[in-house]
Amino acid sequence: MKNEILRALRETDGYVSGQELCNKIGVSRTAVWKNIRSLQEDGYEIEAVTNRGYRLAGVPDTIAEEEVASRLTTERMGRQIRYFSRIDSTNQYAKRIAEEGAADGTLVIADEQTAGKGRSGRTWVTPPGEAIAFTLLLRPKLSPGRISMVTLVMGLAVVNAVNKLYDLHAGIKWPNDVVINGRKLCGILTEMSAEVEHVHYIVIGVGINANLTSFPEELSQIATSLKLELGRDVSRAGLIAAVMEEFERLYAEFERQGDLGSVMQEYNDLCLNAGNKVRVLDPNGEYTGVSHGINAMGELLVETEDGNIREVYAGEVSVRGIYGYV
Amino acid sequence: MKNEILRALRETDGYVSGQELCNKIGVSRTAVWKNIRSLQEDGYEIEAVTNRGYRLAGVPDTIAEEEVASRLTTERMGRQIRYFSRIDSTNQYAKRIAEEGAADGTLVIADEQTAGKGRSGRTWVTPPGEAIAFTLLLRPKLSPGRISMVTLVMGLAVVNAVNKLYDLHAGIKWPNDVVINGRKLCGILTEMSAEVEHVHYIVIGVGINANLTSFPEELSQIATSLKLELGRDVSRAGLIAAVMEEFERLYAEFERQGDLGSVMQEYNDLCLNAGNKVRVLDPNGEYTGVSHGINAMGELLVETEDGNIREVYAGEVSVRGIYGYV
Repeated sequence: MKNEILRALRETDGYVSGQELCNKIGVSRTAVWKNIRSLQEDGYEIEAVTNRGYRLAGVPDTIAEEEVASRLTTERMGRQIRYFSRIDSTNQYAKRIAEEGAADGTLVIADEQTAGKGRSGRTWVTPPGEAIAFTLLLRPKLSPGRISMVTLVMGLAVVNAVNKLYDLHAGIKWPNDVVINGRKLCGILTEMSAEVEHVHYIVIGVGINANLTSFPEELSQIATSLKLELGRDVSRAGLIAAVMEEFERLYAEFERQGDLGSVMQEYNDLCLNAGNKVRVLDPNGEYTGVSHGINAMGELLVETEDGNIREVYAGEVSVRGIYGYV
Repeated sequence: MKNEILRALRETDGYVSGQELCNKIGVSRTAVWKNIRSLQEDGYEIEAVTNRGYRLAGVPDTIAEEEVASRLTTERMGRQIRYFSRIDSTNQYAKRIAEEGAADGTLVIADEQTAGKGRSGRTWVTPPGEAIAFTLLLRPKLSPGRISMVTLVMGLAVVNAVNKLYDLHAGIKWPNDVVINGRKLCGILTEMSAEVEHVHYIVIGVGINANLTSFPEELSQIATSLKLELGRDVSRAGLIAAVMEEFERLYAEFERQGDLGSVMQEYNDLCLNAGNKVRVLDPNGEYTGVSHGINAMGELLVETEDGNIREVYAGEVSVRGIYGYV
């Protein structure tokens, strides 16, 4: 019910009377009052003025369930939220509850990760109160070889959300690095449980450097945060909600189409590889070329000097001008 | 230590003196005596004759850790065994301990599965005392798309073990059904935990109809057991050990080669699809042709009537003469 009260307060510019809240949510004045008190204890500034009602004057910097849920208008993504002020890793937790039957679209959010993971076993730092860490659980009807496409969809969702909320020009470095001014803002780790031909579930972990102001030495030249770029704090809950909205729309397109055909153009318009010189570190060796963006399977198209087009499925790809490749 | 005593008794035709056992294993007479007593309590018939020593006169029909471990000569597969008289599913358990860090090559064995799983969520029946159910945990350095090859290796290992131990002519129906006289003896379910490009671990579940004498109605025409084919009971522990030996050899070949190139011929010699008319139920439609067995990637080669060779990666393939396809 706290979600509904917050949503109602947020939808109104001025005051909402207690009676209006009762009617809207269908509960007693006492229940409204109790929940207002509880929200105030959570850090929400809610003014109560006799004969006028309640007004939301300030929200705490939290990404707890209420703060995210009251902003969501999605129908599938994040309808179930599990929030932790501290957890080992949102991906690990999401995998555990997936084994126990948690629903498609379940969103796991943590204010702090003590053992956050990046790709290939690397660590991912999530300091409390500053970063965004969430994991979305999906149960797609896909073969394991097609999962990389879902990862690209999430990358695109984050870029779109960032560009809609802030006056920044974020782009995507294939497959799913979100980059601002040549530095990395976001990491995505997709993991799956699958049979040979059939995926049981996937978890998509997203880490966004929201309000961080410093990074470990080795990352200081390649990482950035929204706060560093904007010079102010951003609402982490607002960004999570915006990513969910974008992802829901794009993923529906992907499911309808069966591949990235209908979101490919949107991706390529934001793809920093497209039209640029790239260096590919392939399992079979290293080569350079000019990228033409992705195809409908999410593979990166790279035209080598002899005019051949290679389709890159895996491997590290550097883009000239980003992360020190000059 | 019970494993070592059992192994020593098994290696000798007649009697082994208590002193010999002490020397071989490096423990006291009392320790030997205590372990002999414990084995007798487990159902082993061990004769003790003054001045001659101990002799193994009978083994219980068990697939408990000691009985399997004392038969193994592998160096990697099954060096760690977890045995359960009853469990929900050996694959489920193997996945749980894999998350907790269990070693590559760990073998999970159960006498009874209460929620055994087949492919795509089907159930797999494992009645106590009759069937074989085990799961092998591996941590291969592979991309998810190459896991199907490991499944083929396990299928080949089971066929080889069956044909070495018994006078039967088992074959493989691609990808990994073990078939005797047109009926299915064994099912294999491989599951993985993976990132997009990188496998964390796989579990290979194997269910063999060892000493079953009846099947559910819907399986009665398509399933068989070793007991039904041979007219006698088989040693389940002996078969598990033989599969591990075969798998260790074949998997080492696969790892060395990086694909199935060096075991392809061995597979195709036993492949019931090869040289036969097959019907392929592809995600894209149905067609028939003559199979030429697998290629080095484990794909089934099917020559259609127009002379084209198709490489089948996934989908259901029927073979004329097997499971009712005439």
